[in-house]
Amino acid sequence: MTMKTHDKEDFPVAQIRRYLEPGPIVLVSSAWRKEVNVMTMGWHTVMEFSPSLVGCVIASGNHSFELIRNSRECVINIPTASLIDQVVGAGNCSGRDIDKFAHFGFTASKAGKVRAPLIAECFASLECKLADDSLIDKYNFFIFEVVRAHVARVPKHPKTLHYTGNGEFVVAGKTLSRRRQFRPEYL
Amino acid sequence: MTMKTHDKEDFPVAQIRRYLEPGPIVLVSSAWRKEVNVMTMGWHTVMEFSPSLVGCVIASGNHSFELIRNSRECVINIPTASLIDQVVGAGNCSGRDIDKFAHFGFTASKAGKVRAPLIAECFASLECKLADDSLIDKYNFFIFEVVRAHVARVPKHPKTLHYTGNGEFVVAGKTLSRRRQFRPEYL
Repeated sequence: MTMKTHDKEDFPVAQIRRYLEPGPIVLVSSAWRKEVNVMTMGWHTVMEFSPSLVGCVIASGNHSFELIRNSRECVINIPTASLIDQVVGAGNCSGRDIDKFAHFGFTASKAGKVRAPLIAECFASLECKLADDSLIDKYNFFIFEVVRAHVARVPKHPKTLHYTGNGEFVVAGKTLSRRRQFRPEYL
Repeated sequence: MTMKTHDKEDFPVAQIRRYLEPGPIVLVSSAWRKEVNVMTMGWHTVMEFSPSLVGCVIASGNHSFELIRNSRECVINIPTASLIDQVVGAGNCSGRDIDKFAHFGFTASKAGKVRAPLIAECFASLECKLADDSLIDKYNFFIFEVVRAHVARVPKHPKTLHYTGNGEFVVAGKTLSRRRQFRPEYL
């Protein structure tokens, strides 16, 4: 099956909470020396608007752990529900054994500021540089700065996947606005 | 309007990723000396199964920041979409000015291991103790251990709220299972 690719445009890094704060499962791509890999990741949080910081857990047993720790870079790619089988597949095998980009048919696009590739089939890709490694040894917790963001104009309301464990996902549903109840400075 | 309360049962703390990993907006309750407060929070991540660790950002400008830093405890309560107006309301005022429990009509239930109250109107409440304060000064980042969890049996698939900024929320939609594609040890 051919997967759809997304034409993405530059997006302000200080606004990436729009896509990460809802808590989607993401695909993290990495590159180190001659290796390129991708892993599925669900434990992440926005930490600051500017600099644009994201914290996430990458378990040390993952092949990506050493690629990312050595290169101090990665790309956080956000898939929609149409990629559910690739998301599950990438999370249930190891880059030690196979070339996941080839195996799952992901298209690697060149990033601007990091060596790890963007995944063209994802609607958003966030180029990240390691900003703080102080909690890696204790918690496998990486704090990245998003240095460049690429987001497709459509879909406007992406049907992201949210993992609940046990092999089950919740898909992003309807959108509700309460804009008028917010203080302007909190928007 | 009267809000519905949820009868909750003990839930294994090592399994709370089921409710937090999808990335819902949460209501964090706190207590210190004679003060009780609640704040809306969207920047959090699971960090470990056992001990059950959760990391989250509580900006230092929030009234809750000092209550939680001083008491070293809080309760993370998860609301469904029916509480959207209370979620927005609690996020757009300060406990310095009003008693939010009274103002928003939340029912405070007694927790088992912390002084901060559970919010009876939320379907899940996670009692937390501060496990690591090393990143509070630099990032307002608190690492909590969930020491007791309370979850209602229904709804089985709670319609949680996921904040995208700009006054807009996405509501949890349909559930998809890919259980059979997982390695048993990854479930």
